[in-house]
Amino acid sequence: MTIITLTTDFGLADGYVGIMKGVILGIAPAVCLVDLSHEIAAQDVRQAACVLARAVPYFPAGTIHLAVVDPGVGSQRRPLLVRAGQAFYVGPDNGLFTLALAEPVAQAFELDRPAFWRPAVSRTFHGRDIFAPVAAHLATGVPPERLGRPIADPVLLELPRPTRHPDGHIAGQVVYVDRFGNLVSDVPAAWVAGGRWRCEIAGRQIVGLSGTYAEAAPGALVALIGSEDTVEIAVRDGSAAARLGVREGEPVLLWPMS
Amino acid sequence: MTIITLTTDFGLADGYVGIMKGVILGIAPAVCLVDLSHEIAAQDVRQAACVLARAVPYFPAGTIHLAVVDPGVGSQRRPLLVRAGQAFYVGPDNGLFTLALAEPVAQAFELDRPAFWRPAVSRTFHGRDIFAPVAAHLATGVPPERLGRPIADPVLLELPRPTRHPDGHIAGQVVYVDRFGNLVSDVPAAWVAGGRWRCEIAGRQIVGLSGTYAEAAPGALVALIGSEDTVEIAVRDGSAAARLGVREGEPVLLWPMS
Amino acid sequence: MTIITLTTDFGLADGYVGIMKGVILGIAPAVCLVDLSHEIAAQDVRQAACVLARAVPYFPAGTIHLAVVDPGVGSQRRPLLVRAGQAFYVGPDNGLFTLALAEPVAQAFELDRPAFWRPAVSRTFHGRDIFAPVAAHLATGVPPERLGRPIADPVLLELPRPTRHPDGHIAGQVVYVDRFGNLVSDVPAAWVAGGRWRCEIAGRQIVGLSGTYAEAAPGALVALIGSEDTVEIAVRDGSAAARLGVREGEPVLLWPMS
Repeated sequence: MTIITLTTDFGLADGYVGIMKGVILGIAPAVCLVDLSHEIAAQDVRQAACVLARAVPYFPAGTIHLAVVDPGVGSQRRPLLVRAGQAFYVGPDNGLFTLALAEPVAQAFELDRPAFWRPAVSRTFHGRDIFAPVAAHLATGVPPERLGRPIADPVLLELPRPTRHPDGHIAGQVVYVDRFGNLVSDVPAAWVAGGRWRCEIAGRQIVGLSGTYAEAAPGALVALIGSEDTVEIAVRDGSAAARLGVREGEPVLLWPMS
Repeated sequence: MTIITLTTDFGLADGYVGIMKGVILGIAPAVCLVDLSHEIAAQDVRQAACVLARAVPYFPAGTIHLAVVDPGVGSQRRPLLVRAGQAFYVGPDNGLFTLALAEPVAQAFELDRPAFWRPAVSRTFHGRDIFAPVAAHLATGVPPERLGRPIADPVLLELPRPTRHPDGHIAGQVVYVDRFGNLVSDVPAAWVAGGRWRCEIAGRQIVGLSGTYAEAAPGALVALIGSEDTVEIAVRDGSAAARLGVREGEPVLLWPMS
Repeated sequence: MTIITLTTDFGLADGYVGIMKGVILGIAPAVCLVDLSHEIAAQDVRQAACVLARAVPYFPAGTIHLAVVDPGVGSQRRPLLVRAGQAFYVGPDNGLFTLALAEPVAQAFELDRPAFWRPAVSRTFHGRDIFAPVAAHLATGVPPERLGRPIADPVLLELPRPTRHPDGHIAGQVVYVDRFGNLVSDVPAAWVAGGRWRCEIAGRQIVGLSGTYAEAAPGALVALIGSEDTVEIAVRDGSAAARLGVREGEPVLLWPMS
């Protein structure tokens, strides 16, 4: 049973997500639907790209990821399908799939075959009229090559990357703030393995990396290796985001301690 | 695999929706469950009727729509099943299914066969005790005629209708405000096709209908044809509802421009 | 098709729940996933235990309940599996399953077989790395005895119990406040059957038990038998929690009226 995940900024109140599921099930009745998030901030393509990239590795091969955060709906922005690694992606060509497209064997297709869309395509809800039916046809076995034409220039977001400096310090940044207020950085665990480090964020110093939340004193600010295998800043039983007043993009520095 | 959709004002925190799903799956294990919305404002039957009516056309024939927004639970209000078009509806007889009942071949049944209910029926949660099991039995193939008795007088909401006036102007109203703050009106696209119009709402004038959100300047108030094929008032990258301070019921006038 | 329910304090925005579902479906593709609640207050083990206990009776035999509210993740707290009644429970050993463990034939197992976990176990997200895969293996038919070792001392919450006093009065308390602001108490309906009672809460007196919400005057404070078959305090078309300014733990007294 093929899985289709859904990621949108539609919220769950209005029924838009349910409508997309109705369209999918009308074409591919045996598909398994999994919501990733429908609480992406309105039109926040970067956040959606990040939520998606974090989740994709945990789904089985062949999973189809349908993502609709689409500020340019109705304009000339292209509808897109991506095959990368063992997964598929369907949504607007606006950078949503930047991280998938960074994979070695990624292929992008512009969706240009209206035969696989709903007969009447609105100019405001391509999630329902183009992306949901295309994801469903893909799930029934229609190959990407029949759904669109290969393109070489999909839109990519410029994503910051962590850097290692000659003096040994690492400069990364907060790439995600979760609902607990944990600050997920892009500094890989491998870069700090086996050493002692001092973490600097928002003018605060955190000495050493804790093993777990529970190791810290309640209310203490800690740096640790988070579930994404990157450095994370957290407050035990509290919100590091609120404590430090920071959000995505905040610099995170790590200094080696001798 | 039969689809059952669920629409309630229960929210997702308390587990009430999960409980209804447990009851359904105990009777009809192979059913496919799809949430439409559980964020209907508490006891807002009209809003639920609108969310439901907007979603129904996108589901395959045979879908069962279970809706529980039920201020009169435990009183004499009747439990209801409706067969209309190619869909089924199960819920309280309080107007939730007004738009389905407007279809030419709609039939209403009062649910009066406790054999198809949970053995003990509470006076406060008929969603769990009557509607969920009835929807599940319907999904397993029990015909409506065995679940209840035909009735001719289901409760109907009085819904406003848009009107066309002799001088050529159209008077409609806002029927739905979505999470983006888009104002969905009841003025059909067909009524404004091929002409030039001036839209008046909350004392503001909007000249012309845009093709899409993306066509407008950021922050601009626009009128366009929305995804429901009706006139919609929106703000690009913003909330028209907040900008204009309006909600459901707000008049929308369209004046022909010569 | 085995059912796995999910209960967490993760919220739905970040994709954590979707990630657990991806892990489950990779192991047990034919499982049926049902969300109970992901809006448990952060780290509120007691609330999760209550939501879970209320929902479990409505699911078919063999259902697996996966619950992750886990303030002690990464510490020495044990990962747990419980078989009780006809259901299974998987999650941290912190009292989440107290009510299941009160059943006569409950058995607890410490999960100690990493062969059934994800290969790399983080110290911050055991929901993904231990509990989701174990629930999935259980769903595919692996017996509890192969997933862990029996233990006799699972952690239990101290839950208050309602009491009947010699003078005939009953002392219970509010155990759950739902999204409508209804105050669910732990006083069983059976204890007040056939009598007339005066209910006292937060210094207010309510004379008699109503049959339903709809029987009360709009805005009136009422006591009634709720959907859990316990005494409940409610306000018709309003919130009793807001009206009385009370929350979980508030005493509820019932006095017999002669």
